[in-house]
Amino acid sequence: MERLTAKGNDKIKSAVSVRDSAKQRRETGLFFLEGARLCADAAENNVQIFRAFFTPKALEKYAEYARKVADKAQECFEITEELSSRLSDTQNPQGIFCLCRTEEKDIKTMSVRPDGKYIFLENVQDPSNLGAVSRTAEALGVDGMFVCGGCDIYNPKALRASMGSALRIPVFACDDSVETIRYLKDKGLLALASTPDSGAQLITDVDMSGGVVCVVGNEGNGVTAQTMAVCEKKVTIPMGGRAESLNASTAAAILIWEMVRR
Amino acid sequence: MERLTAKGNDKIKSAVSVRDSAKQRRETGLFFLEGARLCADAAENNVQIFRAFFTPKALEKYAEYARKVADKAQECFEITEELSSRLSDTQNPQGIFCLCRTEEKDIKTMSVRPDGKYIFLENVQDPSNLGAVSRTAEALGVDGMFVCGGCDIYNPKALRASMGSALRIPVFACDDSVETIRYLKDKGLLALASTPDSGAQLITDVDMSGGVVCVVGNEGNGVTAQTMAVCEKKVTIPMGGRAESLNASTAAAILIWEMVRR
Repeated sequence: MERLTAKGNDKIKSAVSVRDSAKQRRETGLFFLEGARLCADAAENNVQIFRAFFTPKALEKYAEYARKVADKAQECFEITEELSSRLSDTQNPQGIFCLCRTEEKDIKTMSVRPDGKYIFLENVQDPSNLGAVSRTAEALGVDGMFVCGGCDIYNPKALRASMGSALRIPVFACDDSVETIRYLKDKGLLALASTPDSGAQLITDVDMSGGVVCVVGNEGNGVTAQTMAVCEKKVTIPMGGRAESLNASTAAAILIWEMVRR
Repeated sequence: MERLTAKGNDKIKSAVSVRDSAKQRRETGLFFLEGARLCADAAENNVQIFRAFFTPKALEKYAEYARKVADKAQECFEITEELSSRLSDTQNPQGIFCLCRTEEKDIKTMSVRPDGKYIFLENVQDPSNLGAVSRTAEALGVDGMFVCGGCDIYNPKALRASMGSALRIPVFACDDSVETIRYLKDKGLLALASTPDSGAQLITDVDMSGGVVCVVGNEGNGVTAQTMAVCEKKVTIPMGGRAESLNASTAAAILIWEMVRR
């Protein structure tokens, strides 16, 4: 394993820029992972690992995780504690890091289950919300998650908040919400747009026995008008209390629960 | 309004210590609020404001909020921008701060609705989780929230995450979970303890038409054995997926939703 020591090393620099910049992630088709468990999750779920970095201490302390990662990685490097601190977003880095390839999934090649339950996030901005929704989606067992517009699912904070679930469940990133929802409707799914508007149909009154895709919008602005228009129904979570609205990840949790519980 | 300028001012020092220390909050019976909206929420909801601090800029920019706060505060002080930065937990402070009195609510004086729905948090540690649950509890309209053990509802991060809901809904802090739950059972409530244990009764199969109190436990360890023992049923959220568990605030959201939706 080649050993990197120089602070200005190009491989470290490019890993940091992928970690910190959504633009870099888009342009390189790479994303950054930190932590023994998260990197091993990627290896186990056939995420393509382009580069892996380990401190000598991590190779010893997290030997089993490190082996899984090293087996799947195209290139492996040993790094100093100093470089590990440079790569890390946390106070006490574990010393294992990966650069992985984002998978280009063409929606046309995706197998949509006509009776499946899907959650669709449009322009959800907060990384903690993105991570929380993917964790809930995995725990409650949805068939897949769509992320569209400004949803940066490969943000390191989102990946950490997801506890790796975003690497384990089917996630499809798409550019055009309207086109994607049309495609899903053609596949037989009922498309629902969620809104805090109390005039919309109560989520408890919607027949969700067949396939459903439910759209949750941006924290401040909700689902966009054009996406609203292409969905079959507007639905809402009845709120008995005085708060203005639910947090986006809480709303998504209740909508996912309503899709799967029946 | 007296003007404070000295960095070492005792009133500023004691406000910071209340902000930063759970022990200080317990010993003084005070808690700390930051932000125009949150402080005005406290004033409107008859929280006792012991001291209020304003920058000249805040008195101008947030005049309406500031007036509400000043009307209710026992003591008001004008502070410099420098002291505002010292008091603030945020990057761009709004320049309005309060020290408020925690209300000692004796559970024996609390009116428990025999058909009410109550959420009970035991040793929930994460301030974001505490804040998120109180926001959900308010939005979905529960009748009250109990916090027990290590739940520090007056943590500044929890109060911020709650968007002020913890100041608007009935919140009861208690020392002894077992005693409190016994009392609530005597009042006619069905006491449920939630657990990720798939052997427990599915939450969807429980009759919640009457009064219910549902206990959510610590993020890592769940509901304590002694609290479990005093509850009538163990209940669980059926999980179809592979994740090990739901986040505590997500689990609480689904349990609250199940209590109120029917």
